[in-house]
Amino acid sequence: MRFFSDNAAAACPAVLDALAEANRLDTAYDGDEWSRRLDGAFSALFETEVRALWVATGTAANGLALASLCAPYGGIICQRDAHIEVDEAGAPSFYTGGAKLILVDGPGAKLTVEAAAEARGRIRADVHQVQPRALSITNATEYGLTYSPDETAALGAFARSHGLGVHLDGARFANAVVSTGATPADLSWRAGVDVMSFGFTKNGGMNAEALIYFRTELADEALVLRKRAGHLLSKGRYLAAQLLAMLEEDVWLANARAANAAAQVLAEACGERLIYPVEANELFLRATAAEAAALRTQGYDFYDWGAGEIRLVTSWDQDMDAVARLAAAIRAL
Amino acid sequence: MRFFSDNAAAACPAVLDALAEANRLDTAYDGDEWSRRLDGAFSALFETEVRALWVATGTAANGLALASLCAPYGGIICQRDAHIEVDEAGAPSFYTGGAKLILVDGPGAKLTVEAAAEARGRIRADVHQVQPRALSITNATEYGLTYSPDETAALGAFARSHGLGVHLDGARFANAVVSTGATPADLSWRAGVDVMSFGFTKNGGMNAEALIYFRTELADEALVLRKRAGHLLSKGRYLAAQLLAMLEEDVWLANARAANAAAQVLAEACGERLIYPVEANELFLRATAAEAAALRTQGYDFYDWGAGEIRLVTSWDQDMDAVARLAAAIRAL
Amino acid sequence: MRFFSDNAAAACPAVLDALAEANRLDTAYDGDEWSRRLDGAFSALFETEVRALWVATGTAANGLALASLCAPYGGIICQRDAHIEVDEAGAPSFYTGGAKLILVDGPGAKLTVEAAAEARGRIRADVHQVQPRALSITNATEYGLTYSPDETAALGAFARSHGLGVHLDGARFANAVVSTGATPADLSWRAGVDVMSFGFTKNGGMNAEALIYFRTELADEALVLRKRAGHLLSKGRYLAAQLLAMLEEDVWLANARAANAAAQVLAEACGERLIYPVEANELFLRATAAEAAALRTQGYDFYDWGAGEIRLVTSWDQDMDAVARLAAAIRAL
Amino acid sequence: MRFFSDNAAAACPAVLDALAEANRLDTAYDGDEWSRRLDGAFSALFETEVRALWVATGTAANGLALASLCAPYGGIICQRDAHIEVDEAGAPSFYTGGAKLILVDGPGAKLTVEAAAEARGRIRADVHQVQPRALSITNATEYGLTYSPDETAALGAFARSHGLGVHLDGARFANAVVSTGATPADLSWRAGVDVMSFGFTKNGGMNAEALIYFRTELADEALVLRKRAGHLLSKGRYLAAQLLAMLEEDVWLANARAANAAAQVLAEACGERLIYPVEANELFLRATAAEAAALRTQGYDFYDWGAGEIRLVTSWDQDMDAVARLAAAIRAL
Repeated sequence: MRFFSDNAAAACPAVLDALAEANRLDTAYDGDEWSRRLDGAFSALFETEVRALWVATGTAANGLALASLCAPYGGIICQRDAHIEVDEAGAPSFYTGGAKLILVDGPGAKLTVEAAAEARGRIRADVHQVQPRALSITNATEYGLTYSPDETAALGAFARSHGLGVHLDGARFANAVVSTGATPADLSWRAGVDVMSFGFTKNGGMNAEALIYFRTELADEALVLRKRAGHLLSKGRYLAAQLLAMLEEDVWLANARAANAAAQVLAEACGERLIYPVEANELFLRATAAEAAALRTQGYDFYDWGAGEIRLVTSWDQDMDAVARLAAAIRAL
Repeated sequence: MRFFSDNAAAACPAVLDALAEANRLDTAYDGDEWSRRLDGAFSALFETEVRALWVATGTAANGLALASLCAPYGGIICQRDAHIEVDEAGAPSFYTGGAKLILVDGPGAKLTVEAAAEARGRIRADVHQVQPRALSITNATEYGLTYSPDETAALGAFARSHGLGVHLDGARFANAVVSTGATPADLSWRAGVDVMSFGFTKNGGMNAEALIYFRTELADEALVLRKRAGHLLSKGRYLAAQLLAMLEEDVWLANARAANAAAQVLAEACGERLIYPVEANELFLRATAAEAAALRTQGYDFYDWGAGEIRLVTSWDQDMDAVARLAAAIRAL
Repeated sequence: MRFFSDNAAAACPAVLDALAEANRLDTAYDGDEWSRRLDGAFSALFETEVRALWVATGTAANGLALASLCAPYGGIICQRDAHIEVDEAGAPSFYTGGAKLILVDGPGAKLTVEAAAEARGRIRADVHQVQPRALSITNATEYGLTYSPDETAALGAFARSHGLGVHLDGARFANAVVSTGATPADLSWRAGVDVMSFGFTKNGGMNAEALIYFRTELADEALVLRKRAGHLLSKGRYLAAQLLAMLEEDVWLANARAANAAAQVLAEACGERLIYPVEANELFLRATAAEAAALRTQGYDFYDWGAGEIRLVTSWDQDMDAVARLAAAIRAL
Repeated sequence: MRFFSDNAAAACPAVLDALAEANRLDTAYDGDEWSRRLDGAFSALFETEVRALWVATGTAANGLALASLCAPYGGIICQRDAHIEVDEAGAPSFYTGGAKLILVDGPGAKLTVEAAAEARGRIRADVHQVQPRALSITNATEYGLTYSPDETAALGAFARSHGLGVHLDGARFANAVVSTGATPADLSWRAGVDVMSFGFTKNGGMNAEALIYFRTELADEALVLRKRAGHLLSKGRYLAAQLLAMLEEDVWLANARAANAAAQVLAEACGERLIYPVEANELFLRATAAEAAALRTQGYDFYDWGAGEIRLVTSWDQDMDAVARLAAAIRAL
């Protein structure tokens, strides 16, 4: 039973069905009927006019988004555990043409206004130092914490007051929406977010993510960059169809609810072992090497996360019996 | 009945089946069982050891390949109608970090040794001029012509003698293999090709292309760049599975044969109208605006291609009755 | 007696004097008194408000200027013999982050509205093709021809009507001003030029060029890029002082007049041998290998320029007796 | 009396004389007699064969050097106060094509093996994380500390064992040589340095720095990049002549000795106020705002350096009477 990553789960039935339905000739690239429905579908979801582009990966979505907000000679303030810094092979630099990530500390991979302000304050306004142009947050964070609408809005207000664009890495945005109970709008543009990556792949998609522009005037350039980066798939309808299928009947919410619920079952079992509160579908807990080995012996797979720590991730399709058994096994340690 | 582009056709049944079969949890990225079989499968096909990477688009494949062969300050000799020059939004520049395409003339988008040599000869060997580092050809070309093994080998020998790497854009490589009757090996590494993009999407795939390294030592860096460019899909097995399904039982050849055959039926009908010999699945023919309109009135869709010219492209799934009717309609003009 | 290049001549006395005078402690970078006078001095010369930056080379000036006008994914229309294409090692690509030079034919390295319009017209307005963002001309051209104010204005109007910025490479702008008799203003911003490189080094400077922004709002970003490219010299006053010294008492015009006059003496001697009219300080003439050898035997140094052609360049400090002797030698061939 | 920066001092007499002497026609770019002597002169100084390139700024020298050692997708380990991180506007990213500076803590801007090893150890060897390719140190550091030959060699050995190239930012290398009493060789290639920036401008030059390749095979590519970056001055002899003049009769050592001596006079006066030992020509000391104001009232200029701290920098031409008066003023605070 695998608790490695939501990244590796199967695609959900609605997605498979959508692919089959889209499997007929249509206009290439993004001229097809599915792709053309994206702006409308996401505008409805976000209660405002947005431009929505499909892309195949979250890294590409983040790269394109940051390139929209930051010049090659600019800087992007983010928490130092952010995926864009740690796990994207420098894609933000590639996409922006060399922009710098300005790293700050923060609990559980969360960026605070205080930390961002401190970093901003240290930079002289001259040509010798890289001037920040954007701020990037991740909701839910790499450590499974969420930002509330108020927390997001505080960062958004800080950014506005310093002329910084705001990027939201929403690889697990669905989990954050479910967890906070907030609307997509309150967690994004109403709180000052300019552009976001909206993850579907970890949440039951096959290979489709949405790149959402709340500042719609930025989307035209992003379309060019998407092509230039080799991300304009010739049969884009297969990506668009996945996104639409998951929006319809709120499949995306149902999937995230399932993953979060599984995480909560485990969280209760972990108790004091937990390093961070469990606010999405990831758990980080203290476990000795012997304890980790004991769990593995019982058939549970997961990553070690530093010395004496392990990470468990739940997915949309997690078998709840297996989850219950793992919870029991953890309690029994 | 659409004769716009093979780019827009449906995916073939083998591909859909393979996606369904791959729809279960496995290791993320390219650690899954399908991805790990690619090197072997393509090595068998090419009769030599290769490294094979899946990518989602031909533009990405070309960009990665060219970045493997050419430094940011180098140049790439290609025919001026090449897809990398005309239709990839500058992706080669993006991927290489600014390399220059050195454009030469050539009939039907074919690069000749003479033209390449002339371009090479004009460049002074000093730091003021961009020095060529690679040569890129497309087989079949943008105008539906093919290179024979001998033609390819002549270019390969020229490249070797001038220290240039050789890239093959094989977006329609399957059509070229079928058309020339040559082996994949004879059309690639035996003729001096270092790295190639091997197209599957136009040939019945959904969204998978293969990037083949004959100089296998270049592949490790390409793996890094693939991630950095946001092209390392988290559920890569869905791409690998497509490629494997099309290699098995030679689906890729059957599909290309079907497309080429449809093109030949049309070619015979076109006769003197043809601007280029039809050696793959594309036809370029002279047709007045009135003639083009007449065909469209009968329900045939296609692109105009300059004044008095139109382009027809056939696909793996072209309905042969429709093809026959279009052939008759062309004859009747 | 060398007729190789104005690039290699000595610096003129006014420049040496200015360096000596500037040789005292002042604020670093461009905070010194000389640097702060540049905007004013060049604004007076151009009869409009400009921003003027010193840089150490024309290649850097061109690179910075083009980066101001063209995004990484954009294109720059220029004649195919332009220095930015032929002799700058791809610097425009480096500075812009990968922009493409869109090359067109033109007589004597001159760009015509017709050629530019033809190139523009061939480009589809979609994301697959690189869209032009700028146009670049060189006055005087690489073949020693000049653009009149009207010719420049026609290109400027074309550019405006297509949303293209206009760059002027003025490595030999002084020679063009002297030759045409036009004002600097009429050859630049009044004709639609947005930013120009204004050459001083070939005209008697030591190592200083001016980068002039007529669209002054672009200069702030250029200041950042200048630093980022390592072109913000810590003792910038030595560059500023050179520029100011050459502007004072019109040294720049006197120097260009001298070079042009020497070229005219030679031009009369060349007669039918001339390949282009001599409108600045460069001559391209037909000469057999034997004739070229004969001249060299008499002590004249110059470059061959293709088969049966040679190039002569005159400098601000050309000895007029030597020029007269070379003229006689050419007549005597 | 200014104690702002050595960056702003006048050029020394030997440099002015050399410029006057070089002020005659010679071959353009770096084909002149002065430029061609650089390899020999620096090889003699370093007791090994080196390739030496002139450049106009230290930022350009650092950028070129780092581009020689690190791919666009690689990382460079350095102390977080390093000039390449803090004060070069992202030039290393521009030159390398996007490489990442991996920042570590260290006392007085010094990089330690421990800190470098810790940073290296945290990076997983996979395609998701940027892999380090180089290590960069500054001697003397931004806080005026020096590395001994042994300290440098320890870092060199660490780098070698991890496949990292080693860059030395020697903007104040002369001060370090004088201060440590070590040979240039012992502070560079014998300790594992692959390429270094050797500063002359802060030490009495006008606008010339040397870029020294101990791994000589890297220099050819650097020559191309230097041109591509617009740093190949057309009259390079004026830079080469400065360097040669300062090497002859050890002007560079004499100048550094003077600056360091002035710093020592001040250091003795500062006593307990000193934040770092004074090992070169920079002093960082504690001074209240009132104390700083008192010094300024007496005519001394310098930078504040954070709250309650000021920075003093001495130059090659510092007036020793003024230094003595400042020392007395500090004692009198």
